[in-house]
Amino acid sequence: MEHVDTLITHAHMFTMRGDGVGYVKDGAVAVKGQRIVAVDTTGELTHRFTAEETVDATGHALLPGLIDAHVHTALAVIRGVAQDVRGWLEKAYWPFYKQITDKDVVVRSMACVLEGLKAGTTTFVDFVDPAAECAEAYVASGVRGRLVAQFNALTADEQLTGLYALDQAAGHARLAEAAAFANTWNGSEEGRITVVLGPVAPDLVLREHLVETKRVADRHGLMINMHVAQGDRETAQMLQRYGQRTVAYLDELGYLDDQLMAVHLTVATEQEAEYMARNGVSMMLCSSAIGLVDGVVPPSIAFRRAGGLVALGSDNGACTMFNEMRLTAYFNKILKADPTVMPAWEVMRMATIDGARAIGLGDQIGSLEVGKQADLITVDLSGASLGPVLGEPVRNIIPNLVYSARGTEVRMVMVAGRVLMRDGEVLTMDERSVLDDARDAAQAIADRVAANPAHRDLVLVSATKDGRL
Amino acid sequence: MEHVDTLITHAHMFTMRGDGVGYVKDGAVAVKGQRIVAVDTTGELTHRFTAEETVDATGHALLPGLIDAHVHTALAVIRGVAQDVRGWLEKAYWPFYKQITDKDVVVRSMACVLEGLKAGTTTFVDFVDPAAECAEAYVASGVRGRLVAQFNALTADEQLTGLYALDQAAGHARLAEAAAFANTWNGSEEGRITVVLGPVAPDLVLREHLVETKRVADRHGLMINMHVAQGDRETAQMLQRYGQRTVAYLDELGYLDDQLMAVHLTVATEQEAEYMARNGVSMMLCSSAIGLVDGVVPPSIAFRRAGGLVALGSDNGACTMFNEMRLTAYFNKILKADPTVMPAWEVMRMATIDGARAIGLGDQIGSLEVGKQADLITVDLSGASLGPVLGEPVRNIIPNLVYSARGTEVRMVMVAGRVLMRDGEVLTMDERSVLDDARDAAQAIADRVAANPAHRDLVLVSATKDGRL
Repeated sequence: MEHVDTLITHAHMFTMRGDGVGYVKDGAVAVKGQRIVAVDTTGELTHRFTAEETVDATGHALLPGLIDAHVHTALAVIRGVAQDVRGWLEKAYWPFYKQITDKDVVVRSMACVLEGLKAGTTTFVDFVDPAAECAEAYVASGVRGRLVAQFNALTADEQLTGLYALDQAAGHARLAEAAAFANTWNGSEEGRITVVLGPVAPDLVLREHLVETKRVADRHGLMINMHVAQGDRETAQMLQRYGQRTVAYLDELGYLDDQLMAVHLTVATEQEAEYMARNGVSMMLCSSAIGLVDGVVPPSIAFRRAGGLVALGSDNGACTMFNEMRLTAYFNKILKADPTVMPAWEVMRMATIDGARAIGLGDQIGSLEVGKQADLITVDLSGASLGPVLGEPVRNIIPNLVYSARGTEVRMVMVAGRVLMRDGEVLTMDERSVLDDARDAAQAIADRVAANPAHRDLVLVSATKDGRL
Repeated sequence: MEHVDTLITHAHMFTMRGDGVGYVKDGAVAVKGQRIVAVDTTGELTHRFTAEETVDATGHALLPGLIDAHVHTALAVIRGVAQDVRGWLEKAYWPFYKQITDKDVVVRSMACVLEGLKAGTTTFVDFVDPAAECAEAYVASGVRGRLVAQFNALTADEQLTGLYALDQAAGHARLAEAAAFANTWNGSEEGRITVVLGPVAPDLVLREHLVETKRVADRHGLMINMHVAQGDRETAQMLQRYGQRTVAYLDELGYLDDQLMAVHLTVATEQEAEYMARNGVSMMLCSSAIGLVDGVVPPSIAFRRAGGLVALGSDNGACTMFNEMRLTAYFNKILKADPTVMPAWEVMRMATIDGARAIGLGDQIGSLEVGKQADLITVDLSGASLGPVLGEPVRNIIPNLVYSARGTEVRMVMVAGRVLMRDGEVLTMDERSVLDDARDAAQAIADRVAANPAHRDLVLVSATKDGRL
């Protein structure tokens, strides 16, 4: 008998191998060090292995950890201040965003990571700034970070009016910093922390910055993560500065390949989406955020139909992938007036194996397979929200996880073989102090906004005063 | 100082009075017997009252209990067996539905009520059958039941093919039973249990049944609750049998008035919706269910614009009103490609005061007001999903409740002055046994479906076999 660190047994196991969800009845996984060493039935594995710790997952689903493919963790503390309005960014969000300082980035970021972790997210593709502080926090929290070293070329005043003032030297300096960060951090913590380059958006850097970014990415084998076609605002900037829509512009720069993780595609046409997909670009779909601020469902159906990989991101919304899976399935059914569109198993794949491939980690995570990183979660199916569990003749577990789960049913979270949450209790963070610190940081931001007379007539300030909030 | 039973203090109180959400900072409510006797600031009420029990709601929201205006509680146990398909009713749901027996209706129903109660639902407009057994369960559970005494005129074989076979005598007999049930139960438990008449749908009863239903409703002062324009299937039946679409048919029968709670309106045109609204009909909007099985967003915007009252119902989906509020806000933004549509405060009103008015209980529940029933909930705002709480300059509580709450943040639930849940623990039901019984009932249903060879090729049976479920 081989000895392993952890054996998880008796689960409703969804390996996400093959084309579907890869269900195994009475399934089990053996973990040694960071990796999965066996995936089979409980009967098989208990014959082959002894274990330091055996976790009985009877009545639980066992799944790969969920992947949040696009999130600004440090911004979640100002959630709820910019929705139900037109022009959310300029009219509601920007005044708060501009009051955010670097000094408390870690406490803000970790509150969001805590929320995601408790709901089964094991990998965060996170826009980090300042990057080094955030990376240290990822080391401590134990989750998998695919950190986006972000940079733009905005001048110091960051005014989002007219044609944005962009500064060539500042953009190059920030790109150089991002590259240095990538050099230091990519592959650290035995591969748990990886880095991608993040020009924020094509309208917020100059052409030469994108050219240089591609060169750096090629040299160091890094992916590029960028907001693409994220709104009419961006399109207008691109047309004014370059006379081209974003996708054509990026095509000309040689950007449309499998090195690019394209975020949103809110205003990409179906044809543009298909063209990007055929060229190997992957799509980060943020249903909750884009539905909320734009009332738009991005063209992920066309993107997938053309063979593209789609991952899901919570952006700056409710940081649970259960929320994203549900909204993605619903929104696309409504978009097409077709209940067969985006079935539960497809969105579950987007949050696991398809998402892993889309972010360039398909050989490491996203499914329960021998040799992969042991990133996995158990979900208690016995409560009112997910039960009764039926296996035959129709198995209802995946639909109920997608359409009914709250996220609070997640009980155990493991990343790279290490248990980060056990019985719903997070082991790597002090929950109360993380949340208290985040509250203080948010309050300080709000106080600074309130102190500025220029913000007295903001639409949601008025809504607060007249009793709608 | 006046002595009361309960004083709830120091809350972020949303009374839902006036046109908005009626926020009171450091708010408090005094409860005596079944009713609210004072609503004001904590400072005011602690000067006026002493109390048997004082609940410190610091860091919590205090809201009217949420209203689930359309739910089939007894059917929630087969959740997850009929979605992501076209023709969900005939192709996926009906085989399971037909295997449901009367004998375990209470255990099935109470599992759903438990789920709703834990997530802050205090009133359930519930299709009960057999009605008496369900009513007894409502007595025991302590929640507010607005019970729909449902009846149809289908012949015993209940085949949903061709023009449905309807039986005049059977329909009349079932209507008589429903009327007798209403006679016995309406207003019982000091008004906590009320009854409305429920012809299931215009295509499932004959014209004379509807005529007689209206007569009985008028005589006893009862409302009528009916699925209306719920799908193309219904429209086809109506055209074939009567040569009319549903709304015109009901208009001719004198049904379009404030006695009618119209459920769904899935395939009602905007003009039909507006016409119904102008005539005083109220609309039960079930966003999750209709989005899932039809990919459709019913015309509630047109209905409201014409002055109609809209309530929200979970139908047979995830039985939480947080889910319904969120999906309703999102779906309508997407329908209109307009993020200002259905802001958070509007959907919160639909789940509280507007919902109460729509179901005919606006003078009793739906807001925190002196003289109303003490149906209220507290929601812990301190966790990762709802924090950080900001008050100034933009109050983010209502948006976060709508767009981020899971439902598990509800801590206390009171109905008619009685605490049903305290610190998240339900006092009137044994959770584990309710859920275990529901599991056994669901398993028995599934076993009967599996045993029938006719169901071998059902689309989701195939999906289960080939690994997509």
